[in-house]
Amino acid sequence: MKFAFLLYPGVEPIDLAALGVVSMGRRLMPALSYLTVAAAPGLQTLANGLRVAADTGFDDCPPVDWLIVPGGPGWSAAAEDPALLDFLRARAATPMVSLCTGAMILAAAGLLDGRVATTKCQVTAAEDSPLDLLAERHPRVEARPALLVDEGQLITGGGVGLCIDTLLYLLATRVDAAKTEELARILEYGAAAQANRARLDTVVRSGAAAGG
Amino acid sequence: MKFAFLLYPGVEPIDLAALGVVSMGRRLMPALSYLTVAAAPGLQTLANGLRVAADTGFDDCPPVDWLIVPGGPGWSAAAEDPALLDFLRARAATPMVSLCTGAMILAAAGLLDGRVATTKCQVTAAEDSPLDLLAERHPRVEARPALLVDEGQLITGGGVGLCIDTLLYLLATRVDAAKTEELARILEYGAAAQANRARLDTVVRSGAAAGG
Repeated sequence: MKFAFLLYPGVEPIDLAALGVVSMGRRLMPALSYLTVAAAPGLQTLANGLRVAADTGFDDCPPVDWLIVPGGPGWSAAAEDPALLDFLRARAATPMVSLCTGAMILAAAGLLDGRVATTKCQVTAAEDSPLDLLAERHPRVEARPALLVDEGQLITGGGVGLCIDTLLYLLATRVDAAKTEELARILEYGAAAQANRARLDTVVRSGAAAGG
Repeated sequence: MKFAFLLYPGVEPIDLAALGVVSMGRRLMPALSYLTVAAAPGLQTLANGLRVAADTGFDDCPPVDWLIVPGGPGWSAAAEDPALLDFLRARAATPMVSLCTGAMILAAAGLLDGRVATTKCQVTAAEDSPLDLLAERHPRVEARPALLVDEGQLITGGGVGLCIDTLLYLLATRVDAAKTEELARILEYGAAAQANRARLDTVVRSGAAAGG
């Protein structure tokens, strides 16, 4: 299973932990692989200065099994970037998973219309709630607080650290549940994942809903 | 508080989540900052191909408050790299925190001698246990399974996903406990952190032991 991880200016570096789950996952599921994609190949500056290289630009991105759309303070500019939105719309047939405020970008591309979705719920007192913004700006999206929402070809994950839970869920349901449980153990994340599942509803939809 | 995050070939990308904790932490503790350091400035290739830029080389790295030494499959080559070990020894007065198998590099530099330390404990059936290797190769280090070990100027964190817990602990004890609790909440990591603390002993040593 091949993943492409979308990069844009202002991605929050902690969302790279999701890509880290894929990387660590190769120890148990060697067929996993990933690449990074941005408007053009080369360095992207993430939030607070971390610079990460995109392996490929939008025009040359090979077919992948899942496209990962991370969040971060750059989401609002990304959600108004015509080239980025065109790239997502052109790949609408590719299964996608959003992390944190990455759901706001998918919503801006129209890819969440008619679907249930979640995004970052917890914010500082000074910040707007992305979940509220998702509901306000995108009335065709059914915004819901959740660990993650599974709509078949589209998975929207909750905020920040839940990106790890989201990728573990994806690997458990689409690749190998037993190996993913083993992966959580070697990540020393088993207890954490269990605590998160107990805390927030996991919304799972499939079949007709996924065809939405 | 300024952090330098060490990069070397083969760092496991999920350890970047620790740097992500610092990045997200700026929303509540604006004085936090970070840079990345490697043998030379420029791109480093992490495990499975992620390329991340080092902001500075060893020779030009400015003084920082904490040096973060991540782990990953590249640790064994890093632990035999004279330039990297010299850099760490030259910075021995700088407080350091290791993540996962990063402790093996600190041990190779002799910086854990006479101290209690932990490292990655959970591995696949095919892998050697870094905790066992730490005990076998470095008899002057008291290797112990733990969430983390606090030796004052040196903190060694447990495996992989526990890098998030390690950085939260560091911020809680050295910067601001209340703001760090709030940070865990906006990371949606509060329940996970609590579950991890309940699972593995947290060894805290200070005072005379830290001078060890």
